[in-house]
Amino acid sequence: MIDGHGDDGWKYGATIRADFSSNVVYGGLDAGLREQLRGVIDAVTHYPEAGALSLQTAAAAAYGVSVDSALVTNGATEAIYLIAQAFRERRATIVGPTFAEYGDACALQGIEVRQAGWEELRIASGLELRSALRVESPVARPGGLVFICNPNNPTGQALGAEELLGVVDAWPGTVFAVDESYIEFSLAADSLIAAGRPNVLVLRSLTKSCRIPGLRVGFVTGPPELVARVAACKMPWSVNRLAIEAGLYIFRHREEFAVPVESLLAATARWRRELAEVTGWRVWATDTHYFLMETPSAFSAAKLKAHLVTRYGLLIRDAVNFKGLGPQHFRLACQAPEQNELLTEALRECSRAGI
Amino acid sequence: MIDGHGDDGWKYGATIRADFSSNVVYGGLDAGLREQLRGVIDAVTHYPEAGALSLQTAAAAAYGVSVDSALVTNGATEAIYLIAQAFRERRATIVGPTFAEYGDACALQGIEVRQAGWEELRIASGLELRSALRVESPVARPGGLVFICNPNNPTGQALGAEELLGVVDAWPGTVFAVDESYIEFSLAADSLIAAGRPNVLVLRSLTKSCRIPGLRVGFVTGPPELVARVAACKMPWSVNRLAIEAGLYIFRHREEFAVPVESLLAATARWRRELAEVTGWRVWATDTHYFLMETPSAFSAAKLKAHLVTRYGLLIRDAVNFKGLGPQHFRLACQAPEQNELLTEALRECSRAGI
Repeated sequence: MIDGHGDDGWKYGATIRADFSSNVVYGGLDAGLREQLRGVIDAVTHYPEAGALSLQTAAAAAYGVSVDSALVTNGATEAIYLIAQAFRERRATIVGPTFAEYGDACALQGIEVRQAGWEELRIASGLELRSALRVESPVARPGGLVFICNPNNPTGQALGAEELLGVVDAWPGTVFAVDESYIEFSLAADSLIAAGRPNVLVLRSLTKSCRIPGLRVGFVTGPPELVARVAACKMPWSVNRLAIEAGLYIFRHREEFAVPVESLLAATARWRRELAEVTGWRVWATDTHYFLMETPSAFSAAKLKAHLVTRYGLLIRDAVNFKGLGPQHFRLACQAPEQNELLTEALRECSRAGI
Repeated sequence: MIDGHGDDGWKYGATIRADFSSNVVYGGLDAGLREQLRGVIDAVTHYPEAGALSLQTAAAAAYGVSVDSALVTNGATEAIYLIAQAFRERRATIVGPTFAEYGDACALQGIEVRQAGWEELRIASGLELRSALRVESPVARPGGLVFICNPNNPTGQALGAEELLGVVDAWPGTVFAVDESYIEFSLAADSLIAAGRPNVLVLRSLTKSCRIPGLRVGFVTGPPELVARVAACKMPWSVNRLAIEAGLYIFRHREEFAVPVESLLAATARWRRELAEVTGWRVWATDTHYFLMETPSAFSAAKLKAHLVTRYGLLIRDAVNFKGLGPQHFRLACQAPEQNELLTEALRECSRAGI
């Protein structure tokens, strides 16, 4: 899907004063990383390593897996497309409402897809999700491919290891692609990397936690046999030279890129309460720094988005194109307090004026 | 194919004094482009446009086609993989010996591939190539997909418009993917972009002529219906933000990135004669700044490569993995005179000593 994602301020002539539309954590580029990238600019006169081996090695060490259990990709998005390609003979289940690219990648491969857990996720319960998957057992039958985003985008809901492993271990013949692109933003989501299950591929990303969506760095970890199958679908040089340089720098300075998750979640909780009070609109629960809201039936999220960007220079994520959500849904990611305040005030005016 | 490409100096501990292994034109990063990239580094905190629309628009203007006749890709390599995917129901013909990625991209899609023109290309004749394609008409039958690299990599042989259009127009039901990644390096190759044929997709790249292989910028041009089919296979954000910035800068300053093709070809011709004299080895004809050579039967190109890199810090392209070539073949790209001289002297020693 080319159109319909967040961080699409470029579509509007308006100057963007604050951007709530992508889940990238707020704050500018890390100063050390900026200097590093400026210093190695001339490296672009050489090809990247065709398979980004140096970064694969660094990532394997950072994630605590063997080198042949890791693969570097052009963002987590390439990982999604490669996994769909590698397992295209299977039928897929997508646990949603969730990121559209799982479905798009499957469609491109002609994979039959079943969306699961919509209703369950709507009422925001990990346990209900689990029971739903168990009850609807044919969905995750042996030979299947299941995409789970944990914590989930756009709902922000997180799953713990026990719940996840309950499902994963129940279907050993099914490959589970667990997208942990947002795991640095939650205390409730458990990573499955260390669990080392033979049927689990874990997707990771430096995009959101290290604020480098423009560079495109993602990873797959999992058992070597599954990773090799995914790698076999990969074209050379998909990960550019500066992405590799950035990744190497980040893994050498991991502590400096740690997300301040407790304070971020506390700020998110405060802001959510404030938004609910100020607007009277529905604000969804979340386990992360991003969350869903719903406009009143009088106007759509798309209309709200257009209004906010043109009148206030504030960018939100219209969430209508997440399958299972409707025209009222939009997603916000918590920003710095002064930016949040801008949106709070704008939404106060919108809710009073009926937009 | 992840392993087996040129510009692989990273594999060796040795310091590389001169690199003849990739076809990127010699010279460092353009000073203006360096400053531009340094200045926009902070843009990596935002996603690229999902479909690189701004660069698509600039490329369309530069290539003289409509915006819907152009597509931006993660290097020409992504274009090759997308074309194979878009037309995977067809049978493919690859005119070679040529770049391995056409075959690899087809294999990944389960496309049946026939290599054509090996013998003809070995004796370096465009007319013989044409007659081969005509004689073996079932190869390019309606419904086929043909990959042609013009000028060709690794042979450096170029095809003119008349020859190419003679083939292309003879098979209107066949899609021709003409890779013009090296067209800036030849006076003998004609671009098919302006020909506007309904069955031709043209691949372009900024990698070689603008010395930015590390960034990954390529393009496809062609009739909107074919381009749309290719675009439908594309994942979002495959082209990173700095690649887009570089492309926009280059199209704003095109004259500064013009390859000095006449002097480069003259230097190549002189160097080829010198190498032939000094070594007594076979030096292939070429229409570009890169060309093939063959080691004597006493030792392989792989052995020569290893010897040159460890003893002299000189990197060449072992060409054994081009289908249709053998263990004796290697490829050189003409560098600055003082670098060429290093290799000339090293090869003089190798030929005298029998390596």
